Amino acid sequence: MKVQADDFFFSGLHLMGNTSNPVGSRVTTVFATQLPGLNTLGISMVRIDYAPWGQNPPHIHPRATEILTVLEGTLRVGFVTSNPNNRFITKVLKKGDVFVFPVGLVHFQSNVGNGNAVAIAALSSQNPGAITIANAVFGANPPIPGDILAKAFQVDKSVVDQLQAKF
Amino acid sequence: MKVQADDFFFSGLHLMGNTSNPVGSRVTTVFATQLPGLNTLGISMVRIDYAPWGQNPPHIHPRATEILTVLEGTLRVGFVTSNPNNRFITKVLKKGDVFVFPVGLVHFQSNVGNGNAVAIAALSSQNPGAITIANAVFGANPPIPGDILAKAFQVDKSVVDQLQAKF
Amino acid sequence: MKVQADDFFFSGLHLMGNTSNPVGSRVTTVFATQLPGLNTLGISMVRIDYAPWGQNPPHIHPRATEILTVLEGTLRVGFVTSNPNNRFITKVLKKGDVFVFPVGLVHFQSNVGNGNAVAIAALSSQNPGAITIANAVFGANPPIPGDILAKAFQVDKSVVDQLQAKF
Amino acid sequence: MKVQADDFFFSGLHLMGNTSNPVGSRVTTVFATQLPGLNTLGISMVRIDYAPWGQNPPHIHPRATEILTVLEGTLRVGFVTSNPNNRFITKVLKKGDVFVFPVGLVHFQSNVGNGNAVAIAALSSQNPGAITIANAVFGANPPIPGDILAKAFQVDKSVVDQLQAKF
Amino acid sequence: MKVQADDFFFSGLHLMGNTSNPVGSRVTTVFATQLPGLNTLGISMVRIDYAPWGQNPPHIHPRATEILTVLEGTLRVGFVTSNPNNRFITKVLKKGDVFVFPVGLVHFQSNVGNGNAVAIAALSSQNPGAITIANAVFGANPPIPGDILAKAFQVDKSVVDQLQAKF
Amino acid sequence: MKVQADDFFFSGLHLMGNTSNPVGSRVTTVFATQLPGLNTLGISMVRIDYAPWGQNPPHIHPRATEILTVLEGTLRVGFVTSNPNNRFITKVLKKGDVFVFPVGLVHFQSNVGNGNAVAIAALSSQNPGAITIANAVFGANPPIPGDILAKAFQVDKSVVDQLQAKF
Repeated sequence: MKVQADDFFFSGLHLMGNTSNPVGSRVTTVFATQLPGLNTLGISMVRIDYAPWGQNPPHIHPRATEILTVLEGTLRVGFVTSNPNNRFITKVLKKGDVFVFPVGLVHFQSNVGNGNAVAIAALSSQNPGAITIANAVFGANPPIPGDILAKAFQVDKSVVDQLQAKF
Repeated sequence: MKVQADDFFFSGLHLMGNTSNPVGSRVTTVFATQLPGLNTLGISMVRIDYAPWGQNPPHIHPRATEILTVLEGTLRVGFVTSNPNNRFITKVLKKGDVFVFPVGLVHFQSNVGNGNAVAIAALSSQNPGAITIANAVFGANPPIPGDILAKAFQVDKSVVDQLQAKF
Repeated sequence: MKVQADDFFFSGLHLMGNTSNPVGSRVTTVFATQLPGLNTLGISMVRIDYAPWGQNPPHIHPRATEILTVLEGTLRVGFVTSNPNNRFITKVLKKGDVFVFPVGLVHFQSNVGNGNAVAIAALSSQNPGAITIANAVFGANPPIPGDILAKAFQVDKSVVDQLQAKF
Repeated sequence: MKVQADDFFFSGLHLMGNTSNPVGSRVTTVFATQLPGLNTLGISMVRIDYAPWGQNPPHIHPRATEILTVLEGTLRVGFVTSNPNNRFITKVLKKGDVFVFPVGLVHFQSNVGNGNAVAIAALSSQNPGAITIANAVFGANPPIPGDILAKAFQVDKSVVDQLQAKF
Repeated sequence: MKVQADDFFFSGLHLMGNTSNPVGSRVTTVFATQLPGLNTLGISMVRIDYAPWGQNPPHIHPRATEILTVLEGTLRVGFVTSNPNNRFITKVLKKGDVFVFPVGLVHFQSNVGNGNAVAIAALSSQNPGAITIANAVFGANPPIPGDILAKAFQVDKSVVDQLQAKF
Repeated sequence: MKVQADDFFFSGLHLMGNTSNPVGSRVTTVFATQLPGLNTLGISMVRIDYAPWGQNPPHIHPRATEILTVLEGTLRVGFVTSNPNNRFITKVLKKGDVFVFPVGLVHFQSNVGNGNAVAIAALSSQNPGAITIANAVFGANPPIPGDILAKAFQVDKSVVDQLQAKF
């Protein structure tokens, strides 16, 4: 197979993503699917746009650590350590600040300003995967049985029904 | 350092764990902390006891795949694939059935029988880590700000308050 | 390719293997061949049945560490460290005891009781491989030349002939 | 050791680096040295500033692939494949374009515009290393013997002397 | 720590090893213990000297593949694949021939000529380890119980006693 | 696929390579291309022949560390550490001396004697790749623009033209 420059090239990471959705954010991915030259090379990149008060909700990358820098705006970011401590490690980031989210931990970014925010992040896999907690737990298809989730979250099944209706 | 048999030995995986807790299950771990000889060897083992209708609630191992076999009882098990599909892959397991939970995915086991259940599982790391979703999201210490979680789960902050009070 | 629950599922690890063979043991494997979902995930599981005084004879896994727990009976287990020390690390295991056999080392389990014994073990590869020393050395096909083995084991070629006749 | 937010935090990637040097560029690194939380996590980030017509001269990362996106300006970028083809893979990048430089290959970026240029790049190691060809070959300390370099580059030793005087 | 040339240097691989031992061979190792600069670099080298009709007896490297080239003499080399086939893969090598022994498989080299033989081999680990089958099985310290070995090799315990007396 | 001895075998590493070229050396490779059995096994081997005063010019292996031993003659060898130190680590090797070149660093061997020299080297990849600095920088196809190289090496473009004419 002939090596071609276009296999190593992707265009468009300067474009504002459409953030008019319930969480008010959009992730534009440059994974091996979009940039074939990344295959086997163990890295990828994303741009994240945040509407005012938007967030990239709590999620996990099963195969990658993430390093993020803020290009514009102010973000509260954080991750939670594993059992048994579940410590919440958090920081408010401004333009030019960098933060790391270790592989497999629950993390998020939240735009805590009135304007838009933009971040560039890189991930230590060409195919990092992403699991948004709310979608995986309450929006699985078919749904996880409600009584199992009710016990897991120690709430009435009606609360689970309410959560499952949203995703 | 002299190699000693006791570094490769752990006793007690036949003992029933105490399952009198809200989720009705107990995980007894044989990680490198308990069994020093495991260091760098990339594997570990656990026993899981389930009270009737107990569950090992939705959780993630950030650094390991898990393979599980049922020794006693009947378990509904499942995992959810990553974005955007969030497919729920599930099966009811009886004694002698084996199931795999791929690294980094949300998964659970739930005792769907009236008696106790017991499983033995192995993990592809000497230090796999575990993140119980409910505890990491609603029981982090200090807590994740309630308004961030309310937006992530698209519920009133009062519902989040209720959930955070439990963990 | 669509993800299916059956790719992550295997049934039958509760069944007693047929141990009526010269060494008096049977290994039931759950490798990627039996459980396709294991592919690339770096773990697998086996059940080992031992007749009274049966053994899982000295062998090596070229690509995996093994962690084993006893479900039933009493086993003498051991492994030998590498050159130049060749230390024999050994322990008698009862129900609920756990032991680790590091990758690539010669190890065995021997039922030292009058009843049956059963163990569950996990291996740090989806395709760990197994090399039974007696079969690889004296039962290779075609055979390793007898004079080479006679010198290696420092015995008369007639002893080697006798050993090769058995495998 | 207690986990602290500051171990995962670095500030200052918005600051223009001082590009008043012979090559007209400056790399600001966020490696494990600057951001301790990166240790073992296999990723890092840099900001590169280019003066008008400045360049990040031909170099190699011995332990990392690099993915780069242009924040400002226009860059000609390229890498050269290995022996025997030595193909030059090149592209002109504008704001928002992304390019990949595979691990261990000679690559560069050159500002082909009259204004400043800025890029953010990520590397697939917490400690990627960098070898600037001109400095390693002609600026080693102590110097590589001139006659060896003269034969390697098939020029008079006087040309090598001239090159070594610059680094 | 200052990098020093001597950490990357070892002298003496041209010296004939003393082969006056029962198997008639000597392995001179250049592992990380002898050459500190090898640490973490995943490679090492050995020289093997063979007396006439000497052999490097059946052994296993638990952490490395081996590639070998003959410098002098004629060697029969071979390895045995894993269960259930135990195929013996063998070749007679002359000066300049190269052969590969995959990680963790039982292999040997035997001088099938009247003169000395010499080989250079490299291993895919800075600390590959070596397990000589005869020594690990029949020469372990303390010894593996004779009745266990008698059953494993399906011979009278007196044959095992004879073998254990040699190692 | 049936395992065959010929897949693990290569013949000809005793033959003197033709060194009548500008640098006066020849590398005979035993990579996975020449020896299919090497695939995935992470090691390979080469023979290097040096004419009197010949050299294996400054180059890099992007995916492998190299360990080398001298079979005949006297070699000056060296490598250069990465930025910012660019330390030149060098040694004169005689028959039987061993030296290590860490992955991704610029290194060379130069025959400093009046006779031929021969070395055997092993590399920690079945497909290590090689980048000869002079060829990659001044002989790329199509050429790297001369003005970019002139600035990188801080010489007149005429010097670059002269260098590019040679490769």
